[in-house]
Amino acid sequence: MKMKFADLKHMLDPKSVAIIGASDKPDKVGHAIMQNYIDVGFSGPIYPINVTSDGKIMGYTAYKSILDVKKEIDLAVISIPAQFVPKVLEECGKAKVKGVVIVTAGFAEVGEVALQEQLVKISKKYKLPFIGPNCLGVMDTRSRNDTLFLPTYKIDRPKIGGVSFVSQSGSVGSSTLDLISAEGFGLARFISYGNAAVVDEVDVLNYLAHDPETKVIIFYMEGVRRGKEFIEVAKTATKLKPVVIIKGGVTSSGAGAAHSHTASLAGSSEAYDAIFRQFGFVIANDIEDLLYYAKVFDTQPLTTGNRIAIVTNGGGHGVLATDAVSKVGLVIPELSKDSKKVLRKKHAAIVSIRLPLDIGGDADEKRYMVALDTLENDPNVDAILLITLFQTPGADERLVESVIAHSKRSKKPLVVVSTGSTYTKSHTALMEAAGIPVYESPTAAAEALAALIKYAKYKAGMVV
Amino acid sequence: MKMKFADLKHMLDPKSVAIIGASDKPDKVGHAIMQNYIDVGFSGPIYPINVTSDGKIMGYTAYKSILDVKKEIDLAVISIPAQFVPKVLEECGKAKVKGVVIVTAGFAEVGEVALQEQLVKISKKYKLPFIGPNCLGVMDTRSRNDTLFLPTYKIDRPKIGGVSFVSQSGSVGSSTLDLISAEGFGLARFISYGNAAVVDEVDVLNYLAHDPETKVIIFYMEGVRRGKEFIEVAKTATKLKPVVIIKGGVTSSGAGAAHSHTASLAGSSEAYDAIFRQFGFVIANDIEDLLYYAKVFDTQPLTTGNRIAIVTNGGGHGVLATDAVSKVGLVIPELSKDSKKVLRKKHAAIVSIRLPLDIGGDADEKRYMVALDTLENDPNVDAILLITLFQTPGADERLVESVIAHSKRSKKPLVVVSTGSTYTKSHTALMEAAGIPVYESPTAAAEALAALIKYAKYKAGMVV
Repeated sequence: MKMKFADLKHMLDPKSVAIIGASDKPDKVGHAIMQNYIDVGFSGPIYPINVTSDGKIMGYTAYKSILDVKKEIDLAVISIPAQFVPKVLEECGKAKVKGVVIVTAGFAEVGEVALQEQLVKISKKYKLPFIGPNCLGVMDTRSRNDTLFLPTYKIDRPKIGGVSFVSQSGSVGSSTLDLISAEGFGLARFISYGNAAVVDEVDVLNYLAHDPETKVIIFYMEGVRRGKEFIEVAKTATKLKPVVIIKGGVTSSGAGAAHSHTASLAGSSEAYDAIFRQFGFVIANDIEDLLYYAKVFDTQPLTTGNRIAIVTNGGGHGVLATDAVSKVGLVIPELSKDSKKVLRKKHAAIVSIRLPLDIGGDADEKRYMVALDTLENDPNVDAILLITLFQTPGADERLVESVIAHSKRSKKPLVVVSTGSTYTKSHTALMEAAGIPVYESPTAAAEALAALIKYAKYKAGMVV
Repeated sequence: MKMKFADLKHMLDPKSVAIIGASDKPDKVGHAIMQNYIDVGFSGPIYPINVTSDGKIMGYTAYKSILDVKKEIDLAVISIPAQFVPKVLEECGKAKVKGVVIVTAGFAEVGEVALQEQLVKISKKYKLPFIGPNCLGVMDTRSRNDTLFLPTYKIDRPKIGGVSFVSQSGSVGSSTLDLISAEGFGLARFISYGNAAVVDEVDVLNYLAHDPETKVIIFYMEGVRRGKEFIEVAKTATKLKPVVIIKGGVTSSGAGAAHSHTASLAGSSEAYDAIFRQFGFVIANDIEDLLYYAKVFDTQPLTTGNRIAIVTNGGGHGVLATDAVSKVGLVIPELSKDSKKVLRKKHAAIVSIRLPLDIGGDADEKRYMVALDTLENDPNVDAILLITLFQTPGADERLVESVIAHSKRSKKPLVVVSTGSTYTKSHTALMEAAGIPVYESPTAAAEALAALIKYAKYKAGMVV
C-alpha cells in the first residue's frame, strides 16, 4: 500500500503565525489564543486578523484579511464563527499559507456535515492541510507554537522534552498536558485533532513516527476512521519508537459514550485490544499509566530480560514491591554467588543477602551504592527497582547524588520508588530532572517496568 | 469466646510522658523522639530520663531513673540499647506507668527471643501493656503524642481527623503518614506495633473499633499471629466502621519477603483474601488505594445502590469514567423521565440528555448545579461521579463554592474527578477541605465508589 500523508511540519514548527479571529475582547477565543502566543513567547512574527480590525489588536499590527498581510505565513489559526470559516480558509489558500489549525466548533460534531465538507474541498483545491475543526490544535515546546485557547494560569505548560502527546479529546488533552507539566519528563509536540476532517490519526502517527524530536508517543484515542492505513502506519511506528495508547470506550457503556462524544465508530474493545497488542502498542489503562509509561520509555534503556532486583531501605516496601513485580508477571531472581559474596563481605549490616535486598532503615548512600554496583554486575539481574524512603535518617541529598551518578553509568533499566510528601518530593524532583523515573507506589513502578520489557520483546521480534 | 484486650488509651492519649533514653546528642534516637515531642507541641509534661543525666536534657529537668520522677506518668517511651530494656521496663512497672512504647530494636526480629520473653513476663507481672519492641510506635493528632523518631522536616504530620492508620511495617507507616499529610483527610491515631510482643493486631483492631475518634480504619498487615481472635474482633469491627486493609505478601514471592521482614506466617494469599472478604474488610491493592478509600469512607454516606451518574465538562473524561465505572461492576443507569424533562427545559446547551451527562466545555457553575440538583432527585441514581476540569473557562472558584454547597445538602455519595496541576490543585484542595473526596483519575474515583458500595452491602447483610 502506497500512502500519502499530510505534512505537519508547518503546523507544528511554523516560522510565522496568523491568528484569524484575534480580538481585543477578553471573552473571545481568538483573544485567548493571541494572549497565549504572547505569554508563551512565540519567536516568529504574529499577525492578528479580524474583519473588524482598525489597525491594531492587542498592540500588534492587525489586518482585515490574511490576503492583506503580504508576507510569508506558515500557519494560520482560525477561530471565527463556523459559517465564515470556508471563506477565510479559501483566503488562506490564496495567501499560500502552509498549514491551518481550525479551532472553531459547529461542524460534523453537531451535524453540520456539509459545512465541514466545504472545508475539505478547499483543502484539496489549495493542497492546504488543516487540523480540526473543533479542536484544541497544537503545542510545540521548542518553537513555542501554542494554539490552545486555555490560559497559561489555568494550565501549566510542560517543559521541552522527547515525549509527544496526541489526544482525540480536547479535555483529556488539556488536563493531561497540565499533569505532564508537573512530571519530570518534557514534551516535544502536542496534537489534538478534533473532527479530523483532513489531518487524522493516521497522518499524526506517521509524522511523529518519523519525527526526530519525538522519542516516545503517547496517544488518547476513541476510535479509528482509516483502520487499514492506521495499522500500516502503526507497524512502522512501533518498530521505530514506543507508542503508548489509551483507548476510551473499551467497555460497552464507554463505547456508547465515545460514539456520542466524537462520533467514533468505536468497534469492539476486544478487536482494538487484539490489534493494539499485535502491532506492538503499549496499552495504558488510565491517564496516569500514560505518564508512568512515558517516563520510563523516555529515560531508560530497553531490556527483554524479566528478572528484577529490588533494593530497599524499608522492609514493608520490599514486600509490596515483590508483590507488585510478581503480579505483573516479572521474576525476582536468585542473586549470583559473586553478588552474595561481595554483599556479605562489604556489608554485614545488610539485613538479608537475597532479593528483595533489604539494606536496612539506617542505610546511607554508601550502602546503597554497594548494592547498586553489585546488582549492576550481576548476570542474573536484568533491571533494578530501587526503593529510597527519604523519611529515614540516612537518606538525603547525598543519596540523590549517588543514585544519579549510578544511573549515568548504568546499562540496566532503573526505576525508583519513593513514597512521601514535601521532603521526599524535593529530593525525587532532582532525580527526575536527571532522567530517573520515580514512582510513588511500588505498583506503578512494577507496571512501568513490565511495559518496558514487553515492548522490548515486541521490538526484538520475540513472542509477547 | 471471651477475650481480654490491652487498653491502649494511655499509650495514645497520655497526660504525661517519660522519654527513657532522651539525650542532648543529636545522633541518638532518644534525641529525635524528644525533639518531636517539642516540635509537635505535646501539651502535657515531658520527663526526659537518662542514666547519664546531670539534671538537664534539651532544656528540660531530667532524671536518672523513672523512679526518681515521683509524678504520675501515663506513657513511657523507651529508646535505649536492647539489653537494658528489661531493667527499665521493670522500673516503669514499679513507677506505676500506665503504658509503654518500646522503640528499641534487637529482639525477636534478630533471634533474641529470650530477651523479648523477659519483657512479656515483666508486662504480665505489672499488668503494664507495651507496644513494640522494634516499632515506630504511635502518633495521636489530638493529644499531639508522637513517639516517631523521624524528624518533622523529613515527614510531614497529618492534620486532625477521623481516619486511624495501623501499620505492621514502620517504613510503610512513616511514608504513608507523610502521604496522608498531603491529602484532604485528617488522621485520628497512628499505631505501628513492630514485633507485637504484647500489644498486637488483635488489641489494636479491637481498640480502634470502639474508639469514638476513629471513623475509618486503614491497615497495612503482613500476617496475623492470633488468627481466631483476629476474626472474632474483625466481625465486630467491620460492622461498626469500615476497615480498609492491604496485605503485604500476597504473591508467593511477596510472602517469602514478608516472612523475612517480620517473621510473619504469611499464610496463603487466597486464605487471607477469602477471610478478609468474608468478614467485610475493604481490600486495597496498593498504598494509594488505602488513601483513595479512606477519604471516600471518611466523608461520604453509604449506599447499597450501584447506579452511578457521571457529569462532566469534558467528553473524553466522560468516556474514561464510563469505562472505569463499568470495569468495577457498577452501572450507568437511564435517567428518569422527569430528569430528562428538567434538563431539556432548563439547559438546551447540555450536549446530550443521557449519562454520562456531558454539559459542555463551556459549562459554568450554574449549568453544573442544574445537573447536580436534577440527579440528586432522580430515583434512578444512587451516587454521583462529578468531573470538574478546571482548565476550561467556566470552571473557577464559583464552581468550587457551588459544589461544596451541593455536597452539604446532598444525601447521595459524591466523588469528584479533577485532572490537572497548579490551578486545578488549588481549587480541589478547597473541595477536599470541605469534605469532598477528589481524585486525579476516573479509575481511582470509580474504584473508591465501588469499595463504598461493596462495604455498604456487607453492612446491610446483603450478599456481596
